[in-house]
Amino acid sequence: MKAFEKLEHIQSNNNSILSIGLDTDLMKIPEFLRDDLNGIYSFNCSIIEATSDIVSAYKINFAFYEQYGWRGIEILQKTKNYIPSHIFTIADAKRSDIGNTSRAYAASIFKEMEFDSVTLCPYIGVDTILPFLEFNDKMVFVLALTSNPSSNDFQNLIIDGEPLYLKVIRKMNEISTDENLGFVVGATHPNDIYKVREVAPFNYLLVPGIGAQGGSPEKVLQANKNRNIIINVSRDIIYYDKTENFAELARQRAEYYRDLFNSINFNFIKNNSL
Amino acid sequence: MKAFEKLEHIQSNNNSILSIGLDTDLMKIPEFLRDDLNGIYSFNCSIIEATSDIVSAYKINFAFYEQYGWRGIEILQKTKNYIPSHIFTIADAKRSDIGNTSRAYAASIFKEMEFDSVTLCPYIGVDTILPFLEFNDKMVFVLALTSNPSSNDFQNLIIDGEPLYLKVIRKMNEISTDENLGFVVGATHPNDIYKVREVAPFNYLLVPGIGAQGGSPEKVLQANKNRNIIINVSRDIIYYDKTENFAELARQRAEYYRDLFNSINFNFIKNNSL
Repeated sequence: MKAFEKLEHIQSNNNSILSIGLDTDLMKIPEFLRDDLNGIYSFNCSIIEATSDIVSAYKINFAFYEQYGWRGIEILQKTKNYIPSHIFTIADAKRSDIGNTSRAYAASIFKEMEFDSVTLCPYIGVDTILPFLEFNDKMVFVLALTSNPSSNDFQNLIIDGEPLYLKVIRKMNEISTDENLGFVVGATHPNDIYKVREVAPFNYLLVPGIGAQGGSPEKVLQANKNRNIIINVSRDIIYYDKTENFAELARQRAEYYRDLFNSINFNFIKNNSL
Repeated sequence: MKAFEKLEHIQSNNNSILSIGLDTDLMKIPEFLRDDLNGIYSFNCSIIEATSDIVSAYKINFAFYEQYGWRGIEILQKTKNYIPSHIFTIADAKRSDIGNTSRAYAASIFKEMEFDSVTLCPYIGVDTILPFLEFNDKMVFVLALTSNPSSNDFQNLIIDGEPLYLKVIRKMNEISTDENLGFVVGATHPNDIYKVREVAPFNYLLVPGIGAQGGSPEKVLQANKNRNIIINVSRDIIYYDKTENFAELARQRAEYYRDLFNSINFNFIKNNSL
């Protein structure tokens, strides 16, 4: 099955547009799991077991594993392999390189690690993306507008009357299809999601920045108009509780977000079909 | 010792601005080393032993190791640890993320792996770079103008009369010093090195694209005007020969490049002091 279809199926079957970000940091997990790096794996397994019927995806942020060197990557790969195969997986690696080298990164993420999708940085141009698109059963999410304070440094610079991030979206859409290509758009810029939807009406959007980063799900989902979207929440779910009940409470928090997103989308449909 | 000083010392002591890129791919090393992944490590050790007195740096491209998962990263780390400590090391990882996550990448490359420097992608803004700059004895090389065909997609878009890559250089120079910050500028754009030197007169430039990618060392070094620079050659040195003599012939090829670069710089000085 193509990754795109897998994503549509799981969003429908689990009635959820929520992705949980496994940004797992040894210093932030419950204290009784901090003895060694395997605590990270145990923590991830518990979160996955407690939530896999109410999410559509897990997003694994590579940085948090790379900080422990190859031992961290081994845990990343074990975690990936623990995720049930019907759940969509996102390698949040934000890779960017050219030709030959980009091909090796694509082999790493799609062949060796068998993720369904990856996040990529567009600065180097389409050469970064093309080797990943050769895996035409997979998906790539290209950074368009990120959720950090300095996203304005370059992404919003105006070129021929429009910001760089819209140029990025147009250029990437020239070389791919809605089934293989999505965009990362931070929830801290909900007004810009209107603009994104003008140039990318049907691509999946991957939206971080809800929860700890303070983005508004109402504004994001209003602007998105019920189109294809994945909303990722990391810290506000996985670190919601630090006791032995952390997984159960993470599930409750994930349910809260899933239901919140669904009710906003439901109201949008209702209000727009009156 | 600060990484910047280490780089100046080794360039002076080894009389070399050459960096060798360890873009080691199991399918491209001599056949007798291809039995398993350890062949990559053996290959790297032989190259390092044969060349460490005639280079200033080794650049390790992470993609070629990541394609083998955690086992590849283990070999990357062993290779890094095999490089003599007085030689400058470049983690060519082109990382890009924000705040928290960027901090974890910085911990990975500077603390866990102990590289002297790293390549970073600027699209996300200064937030990507700042956590790396907190390690103020290290160096970062920010991608400005890359050596690939599609580098024009975004890097050369004109904003207020100047290309994006010059905006990137100006912005990055606002937040750092010449001792901590260098730029990656592809050798396939030698005319642009004049423009780069107008806005970044003293930063180190890391120049890939010589050798297999066809950039001209003469044009690059003329434009650079004998300022701080590292020129990287990968495939045309490490894969120059595929027999049991590969390391000896890689050394000869590295000597050729070192001497070529030095003679161009020598002629530049001579011609400009007449």
